[in-house]
Amino acid sequence: MTQSDIGVAVIGAGMAGRAHCAGYRSAPTLFDPPLPAIRYAAVVDANEAVAKDAATRYGFERTSTDWRELLDAPDIDVVSVVVANELHRPIVEALLEAGKHVLCEKPLAPSVTDARAMVAAAQARPDLVTGTGFLYRRQPAVAAVRDLLHEQLGPVSHFNGRYWCDYARSPLTPMAWRYKGGPGTGALADIGSHLIDLAEFVCGPLASVSGAAFTTMVTQRAVPVGTNYGHARAQLSDVVEPVENDDVATFTAHFASGAVGTFSISRVTPGHANSLAFDLLAERGAAKWDMERPAEFSVLLDPTDEARAAVNGYNQVLVGPAHPYIRGGLPMDFPGCSFGVGDLFGYQARAFLEQVAGIEGLPPVASFEDGLRDLTVIDAVTRSAAAGGAAVELA
Amino acid sequence: MTQSDIGVAVIGAGMAGRAHCAGYRSAPTLFDPPLPAIRYAAVVDANEAVAKDAATRYGFERTSTDWRELLDAPDIDVVSVVVANELHRPIVEALLEAGKHVLCEKPLAPSVTDARAMVAAAQARPDLVTGTGFLYRRQPAVAAVRDLLHEQLGPVSHFNGRYWCDYARSPLTPMAWRYKGGPGTGALADIGSHLIDLAEFVCGPLASVSGAAFTTMVTQRAVPVGTNYGHARAQLSDVVEPVENDDVATFTAHFASGAVGTFSISRVTPGHANSLAFDLLAERGAAKWDMERPAEFSVLLDPTDEARAAVNGYNQVLVGPAHPYIRGGLPMDFPGCSFGVGDLFGYQARAFLEQVAGIEGLPPVASFEDGLRDLTVIDAVTRSAAAGGAAVELA
Amino acid sequence: MTQSDIGVAVIGAGMAGRAHCAGYRSAPTLFDPPLPAIRYAAVVDANEAVAKDAATRYGFERTSTDWRELLDAPDIDVVSVVVANELHRPIVEALLEAGKHVLCEKPLAPSVTDARAMVAAAQARPDLVTGTGFLYRRQPAVAAVRDLLHEQLGPVSHFNGRYWCDYARSPLTPMAWRYKGGPGTGALADIGSHLIDLAEFVCGPLASVSGAAFTTMVTQRAVPVGTNYGHARAQLSDVVEPVENDDVATFTAHFASGAVGTFSISRVTPGHANSLAFDLLAERGAAKWDMERPAEFSVLLDPTDEARAAVNGYNQVLVGPAHPYIRGGLPMDFPGCSFGVGDLFGYQARAFLEQVAGIEGLPPVASFEDGLRDLTVIDAVTRSAAAGGAAVELA
Amino acid sequence: MTQSDIGVAVIGAGMAGRAHCAGYRSAPTLFDPPLPAIRYAAVVDANEAVAKDAATRYGFERTSTDWRELLDAPDIDVVSVVVANELHRPIVEALLEAGKHVLCEKPLAPSVTDARAMVAAAQARPDLVTGTGFLYRRQPAVAAVRDLLHEQLGPVSHFNGRYWCDYARSPLTPMAWRYKGGPGTGALADIGSHLIDLAEFVCGPLASVSGAAFTTMVTQRAVPVGTNYGHARAQLSDVVEPVENDDVATFTAHFASGAVGTFSISRVTPGHANSLAFDLLAERGAAKWDMERPAEFSVLLDPTDEARAAVNGYNQVLVGPAHPYIRGGLPMDFPGCSFGVGDLFGYQARAFLEQVAGIEGLPPVASFEDGLRDLTVIDAVTRSAAAGGAAVELA
Repeated sequence: MTQSDIGVAVIGAGMAGRAHCAGYRSAPTLFDPPLPAIRYAAVVDANEAVAKDAATRYGFERTSTDWRELLDAPDIDVVSVVVANELHRPIVEALLEAGKHVLCEKPLAPSVTDARAMVAAAQARPDLVTGTGFLYRRQPAVAAVRDLLHEQLGPVSHFNGRYWCDYARSPLTPMAWRYKGGPGTGALADIGSHLIDLAEFVCGPLASVSGAAFTTMVTQRAVPVGTNYGHARAQLSDVVEPVENDDVATFTAHFASGAVGTFSISRVTPGHANSLAFDLLAERGAAKWDMERPAEFSVLLDPTDEARAAVNGYNQVLVGPAHPYIRGGLPMDFPGCSFGVGDLFGYQARAFLEQVAGIEGLPPVASFEDGLRDLTVIDAVTRSAAAGGAAVELA
Repeated sequence: MTQSDIGVAVIGAGMAGRAHCAGYRSAPTLFDPPLPAIRYAAVVDANEAVAKDAATRYGFERTSTDWRELLDAPDIDVVSVVVANELHRPIVEALLEAGKHVLCEKPLAPSVTDARAMVAAAQARPDLVTGTGFLYRRQPAVAAVRDLLHEQLGPVSHFNGRYWCDYARSPLTPMAWRYKGGPGTGALADIGSHLIDLAEFVCGPLASVSGAAFTTMVTQRAVPVGTNYGHARAQLSDVVEPVENDDVATFTAHFASGAVGTFSISRVTPGHANSLAFDLLAERGAAKWDMERPAEFSVLLDPTDEARAAVNGYNQVLVGPAHPYIRGGLPMDFPGCSFGVGDLFGYQARAFLEQVAGIEGLPPVASFEDGLRDLTVIDAVTRSAAAGGAAVELA
Repeated sequence: MTQSDIGVAVIGAGMAGRAHCAGYRSAPTLFDPPLPAIRYAAVVDANEAVAKDAATRYGFERTSTDWRELLDAPDIDVVSVVVANELHRPIVEALLEAGKHVLCEKPLAPSVTDARAMVAAAQARPDLVTGTGFLYRRQPAVAAVRDLLHEQLGPVSHFNGRYWCDYARSPLTPMAWRYKGGPGTGALADIGSHLIDLAEFVCGPLASVSGAAFTTMVTQRAVPVGTNYGHARAQLSDVVEPVENDDVATFTAHFASGAVGTFSISRVTPGHANSLAFDLLAERGAAKWDMERPAEFSVLLDPTDEARAAVNGYNQVLVGPAHPYIRGGLPMDFPGCSFGVGDLFGYQARAFLEQVAGIEGLPPVASFEDGLRDLTVIDAVTRSAAAGGAAVELA
Repeated sequence: MTQSDIGVAVIGAGMAGRAHCAGYRSAPTLFDPPLPAIRYAAVVDANEAVAKDAATRYGFERTSTDWRELLDAPDIDVVSVVVANELHRPIVEALLEAGKHVLCEKPLAPSVTDARAMVAAAQARPDLVTGTGFLYRRQPAVAAVRDLLHEQLGPVSHFNGRYWCDYARSPLTPMAWRYKGGPGTGALADIGSHLIDLAEFVCGPLASVSGAAFTTMVTQRAVPVGTNYGHARAQLSDVVEPVENDDVATFTAHFASGAVGTFSISRVTPGHANSLAFDLLAERGAAKWDMERPAEFSVLLDPTDEARAAVNGYNQVLVGPAHPYIRGGLPMDFPGCSFGVGDLFGYQARAFLEQVAGIEGLPPVASFEDGLRDLTVIDAVTRSAAAGGAAVELA
């Protein structure tokens, strides 16, 4: 960087965009060493009022309704792209060409083709940092389980994962871009992308998928009146359009290690607003976690002596100072009541800014290659479903 | 014994009496070595139909409506007394005089005076086995926690116990003998007796109590039409009588060891039909258990090395073959799904029959002295409550 | 029946055989109306000492080492067959030909062909009652969830099921008949059979399976010295033989109703001795259950009014008197602490004896047709696995 | 205010002081309507490096080692006092005299006498806003339970509360100001103050206490080398001093409503770092909460119809958009994973700033009167303990 501080902008000020703003605001308060000074430069959103509200709340200097205005702005070094999936590629390519570091929300792109192009654009600018927003890698419990696997539990033999949400359960939830596109672009791409990334982050790469099946439970939705942000209900118009993609996706997978996995993904689950969860069986124990109780995980360690025979069973661990992100990441580091999802965005923002500033510290943000990889798996699952569940190999 | 088999009778064929019948029926199927042959001789109940139904179901030879008929019966060696509390003393004294081994339900008697007389009667016949039915000492988890305290956790510093039931919650539950008698004869004597026995069984003797408080939530109840067994609803008459004793009882206690305890007892708890539960804090760890999930307990063992810092927390232990009563006590000994309350009555019956037969095996049944002790504590709590919560020392 | 009582025999006195003995012993103590008198006639086991021990414990009159001795015994009406799977067909066919009612353990047979022959043999004797021992249909919570689906939750859209055991996890567990046979005869047939039956019992018939995958984690085992009963460890010889079948099996399924299911089955799971569990998503709610906590289940009912918006979430229900099997099936019917697996065998035995005696009462035991159906699904899963996960339709 | 923005300072930059800083930084990002602009003016700490670190992280303009420098600073309107308890009174009195709004950490003062003086000082300046930092009133679940009591559950009959921490469990934790002072100034004042406030906040005022008992488990501690912030371990000197106050405190209480309560407080609990928890029994249901799982609570609603008999039981509610503080308080408002303790400090800071700015919005911060009331109860518990558990009435 030629400047002594880092200028930040966020494109998209819906729910997730505001969370990026909040993350950048928290980033300098967390961990050591200190970050360079952050300049909170700009918030961009097609809806000017939305952009202004976010800028005021999170302390950004200016707003715009056109992301292109960022391209030539010399005070902007880092840009988060938090807009509809189909817009990722053109925006990211332009930002990279303009010399901006880019943190792009997941899924990286609407297709493997687009994602490949974005990876190529990133590789063409090795001087710039790029990242994909797989936020849940930074759940302290996920990081702790991953560490425990490496240190104590040994290789995974069995991964049962699910991501169950309910944001699309109501037939009254209005039509939106997320219900458009062919099979695999629905729940699989939107939330399954997180589960797939988590599975590979924790257990290593997948080798093949099979038994894939998609279901659409709510087959049509009314177009809302006016613009619709987030998942919220809105006033509905008389225009009804078909839902084009999957509400539910399931598949079986084999990991390169030989482990087997079952994946269950739904955006129409009664009673589960945001349950990203897994059960892991490993060589010398087991672990489980559910984001409904993000601050705890359970781990079973094979007893090493007879003295523990009477107390074998899962340990219920409250995430605390012995775990990643807690010590130094929060003003109060009591186990169990410390962090919220806002803190995760802070960790992610700080990690990305550390990479930009050349500071060794947090694990880096998932790369564009990770984002492409995720889409490759999504594509394979989609092909398995199209083939009635037949096995599809991954490269 | 002069006979080669053991003749058994049960006085009282209500809910708990039938459970004693079932226990004797199971006893010879459990554990090693084999018991002597059991003669299922007689069931006694003031209600002849009730007695006959129990005798038929559990395979007893004859019935009676008068317990005095057992006194001279040469085929009867062992008698369970499972009737209203105020009848315990005369029946037990007569049975002991007649040379019968006696297993009496808890609480042993309606007063310390009565219980002292019963202990004296038992001491006058050292050739006979006597026992008090503190069934929950035989919960596999309770026995396991007690063992863990001795072997790994060290002395208890803190005992938080509760026994929360709901059998008296409905104002429509009819008047019965259990709602008569002064303060301390209600929830404290009926279910608090179990909690007090468990506390002393696990943590050692109490030294004093204070802060006792009684509350009566349902102050009057209608007398039922006809005889009323168990806690069930019945047709109510127009006659309403006052409830004379405690629905809720709480107190603080000091154990002789210096540990402190809080006790909370209620028979009118919304949502808890039978929650006997405790949290124990000890020198090198902690444990907790709730009879609502009888087959599991949680135990915290202080880590002995840094390697466990990241997995500290309670172990959720499913009671299994490593725990008392499971191996050999059941045809199927999978952890977690093995036993019910019927099995506990089987363990208790077997333990009492082992004592009668002179077999070394299970831990013996709680003694009449244990039953007297329990009443002594109940009396002290009652006196503390009468004194507005002042401390009362135990001998 | 020409006799006024029912004579019962059990073939096989291993762990499960003893549980059948215990079930017959409990059967007449449970529920109304009274059963005819039961004659506890014979226990058969190739190991005479094992047979004699069971007969003594459970009060059976005689023993034999040869099941053929039962065929002409006029005092025997009902026979439980609880032996190695490959012996089921010849024994059952002979018993039916001899005019005995037969309750056969699951899986019904080692192959669809054998099971078809057994169904044909049963259909040839409509005067005889036949049943397959799918015990877990009688878990009070399973029956309660099934009732709730019909009454309140509506059709199932999603079934995530697992059966995770650990009996084969240790490489020191000796070779036994259950490790022989081709793919699909291992964990899938042994415990997956229960899960498949439960899924269809609760959600209706499956239409197809796909994505099936088998894994063998412990590839060889030492032959034990002497006879090996149950899953217990034994003295191992120097002879090592290959494990021929699946330790882990997973698959995706479609139900005829359109619902999707994921199935995960393992006999080598660290930390789960007997976890048969499911999550159900339905039209108007959801439910979940895990046999590790058999006496409770969770149910989510869609709120019908705004007043419940703040208290939406799963209800944690303790199985109690409002649920099947509890009231009248136990001497003590408190929610949560009432029943063990021994009680389930009592319910099953009673249900079978009611069918034999022509008494209307409990739901009947699963039929031989149910046993055949289960094997048909197992066969389809095995074929899907052989085809790399391709979809296989069920008739 | 004469200025158009609000100038904020924090005195004390230890763990809790930094949390106040973070809270002020978050406050303008939360809820509607917008706050006036906040000027982050000063951080004060006796340790200059500590003050500078906090100022840099949280964006405060200047630092000082002397709180008196704030008194005449015209750019400072609002001051948080987050220092050792015995310093509260002189600092707060001086700040009020200087015309500053004061948010003081709990407990308000080391004695009832001091607290009365502070209340008087506050009452002498009705133009200033004063508050006591009872943070946990802002736990979304606590607020939700309180609302449910008023709207659906009816009056509380029974409150079982505990606050179990472990910060003082290790004998190696160094001597600090919090271990000095007589009985009642230890765990009771430090964390029991929270529990007492919560009990009265949720259930209404206490009328009397009895059965109070104090225990000191770690009777001496080594003085640290250098200054010791927070609870952390430090290098220990050879100087050992006695612990003067309570590690454990228990008591029974009566509420003015007639409800009974048991209170258990410990700072030496194995396995519980921060478990503030209660079980509430009420007229038409029950509720429970444990801060170890802050984002969920359980509530039992008496069924209003027979249809719910089979699904009675506690609802496990994940705190979500239907609950206080979630909607509008967070960028991402998914139930269960939204907030951390940092967010609570944000809610508290925003509430205090709203009061200062005259904005109607969040429930106001607990008053100095609330802080005095809390100390009055602490004093009564201390007198009950001194009298061996005798009852002490509250005014």
